Amino acid sequence: MEHIERIGISLDKKLLADFDKIISKQGYQNRSEAVRDLIREKLSSEILSNPKAHAVAVVVLVYDHHATELMKKLTNLQHSHLFQTISSLHIHLDEHNCMEIITLKGHSGEINTTAENLISQRGVTLGKIHMVPSSAKHSHS
Amino acid sequence: MEHIERIGISLDKKLLADFDKIISKQGYQNRSEAVRDLIREKLSSEILSNPKAHAVAVVVLVYDHHATELMKKLTNLQHSHLFQTISSLHIHLDEHNCMEIITLKGHSGEINTTAENLISQRGVTLGKIHMVPSSAKHSHS
Amino acid sequence: MEHIERIGISLDKKLLADFDKIISKQGYQNRSEAVRDLIREKLSSEILSNPKAHAVAVVVLVYDHHATELMKKLTNLQHSHLFQTISSLHIHLDEHNCMEIITLKGHSGEINTTAENLISQRGVTLGKIHMVPSSAKHSHS
Amino acid sequence: MEHIERIGISLDKKLLADFDKIISKQGYQNRSEAVRDLIREKLSSEILSNPKAHAVAVVVLVYDHHATELMKKLTNLQHSHLFQTISSLHIHLDEHNCMEIITLKGHSGEINTTAENLISQRGVTLGKIHMVPSSAKHSHS
Repeated sequence: MEHIERIGISLDKKLLADFDKIISKQGYQNRSEAVRDLIREKLSSEILSNPKAHAVAVVVLVYDHHATELMKKLTNLQHSHLFQTISSLHIHLDEHNCMEIITLKGHSGEINTTAENLISQRGVTLGKIHMVPSSAKHSHS
Repeated sequence: MEHIERIGISLDKKLLADFDKIISKQGYQNRSEAVRDLIREKLSSEILSNPKAHAVAVVVLVYDHHATELMKKLTNLQHSHLFQTISSLHIHLDEHNCMEIITLKGHSGEINTTAENLISQRGVTLGKIHMVPSSAKHSHS
Repeated sequence: MEHIERIGISLDKKLLADFDKIISKQGYQNRSEAVRDLIREKLSSEILSNPKAHAVAVVVLVYDHHATELMKKLTNLQHSHLFQTISSLHIHLDEHNCMEIITLKGHSGEINTTAENLISQRGVTLGKIHMVPSSAKHSHS
Repeated sequence: MEHIERIGISLDKKLLADFDKIISKQGYQNRSEAVRDLIREKLSSEILSNPKAHAVAVVVLVYDHHATELMKKLTNLQHSHLFQTISSLHIHLDEHNCMEIITLKGHSGEINTTAENLISQRGVTLGKIHMVPSSAKHSHS
């Protein structure tokens, strides 16, 4: 495991105590993992500020399942951007609403455009885009 | 369609022109749909500010697939909160990384805790939580 | 007032009722103003996604007032970026902490760099950047 | 300085190298300060999720300076919530627009309501709320 390094961080006792309290509440086993997550989160948003960054987007759509035409459109849209679509998951929320979770791969700028296009479709009542850098290859200890 | 209402909105020509430009870029067919999306988005975040709100969370986890112990833990965690878990989707990002998309149903406060617990697991390099009100029953025209 | 236009928006009664409830809670006098604010907010974030956009940043810094060296640094930093700094406001939070609110004008990318530089100074315990497009010239009715 | 503690964090070399690159770009002198800022930021948002938390809000308003009635209203609103208002800063953005930066002190839930009320006033074209915990008493090394 020669690719792991250990660094020292000095901080105020009060700040450390507050941090320990919150991370234990969130289920962290140790500080290293919690600090690594903060660092990864910061790097992730830095990377994604570049529209050319390789990314995977998770697009969450809520829509009325009676909107059969929309479902056809969604299918077509996914196929027309086939190179970017990895997979999709369909969930029945209740008697009226479906949730569709679609993953797209590509440059963050392009897949954002595709995702916005999906969300703007008539019948989609809620849409969210979640982006992760696809070069999220950091390992861990 | 007696459940549809039509309201009038007055706004500055310049503001309207700018709005038209951006929504056409995003693929909206008409202003009504774009304004409805803005309204739904605002309502959604208002609803979710209440920890007792019924919600569905989409939890996105990125992790190293060599972390076989983690995979067991993830499975157990999902089963221990079985009442809340709807489904999960597994995606191979590259030779090192997997993405797991898990949907949880329940009160927004509780499922947030469960989601944070999943994200805090060792081996998870990136985690995101996306919440939608499960009473997203607004229809559309 | 020939620069004002009136558009019609059709939406579901339930969605409209929910919207009316939340905006009256927030103090809006009418729907037009509330919808205009949603539209302006969307345009604003769209504009600011371009690092070349003209913007004004409000930088909020919290720091220990015993850190006299920091205060000197902050003053110097502001003067070294003088062309961008409009003004600054100093507030005594409590016996230990000061808040400094600094406004910077320029291209959003550049002033973001300057703001990050201020926040990264030793002694600054909390820092936030708020960006508004400086071409926020939309009028209203 | 017996109130300072030093902890060890183990992390992957690649992750550390990426972190070093981004924090040096942002002007950090050392990793400790950068990690402390990440921790403080996380604690701050955790604290503010409680509406009873003591906080200071920085409210940024952009509005047309011809709206003299609005200016009166803003002044009145500030005085009617006098117990919460610390100070306000007025900036001329251009020939049409003013920016008003108002700081409010109190419970995060209450000052959020006051801030929303300010933003919802006719004539305010852009409004933003920035909240910091007023018990931001963490010191630093």
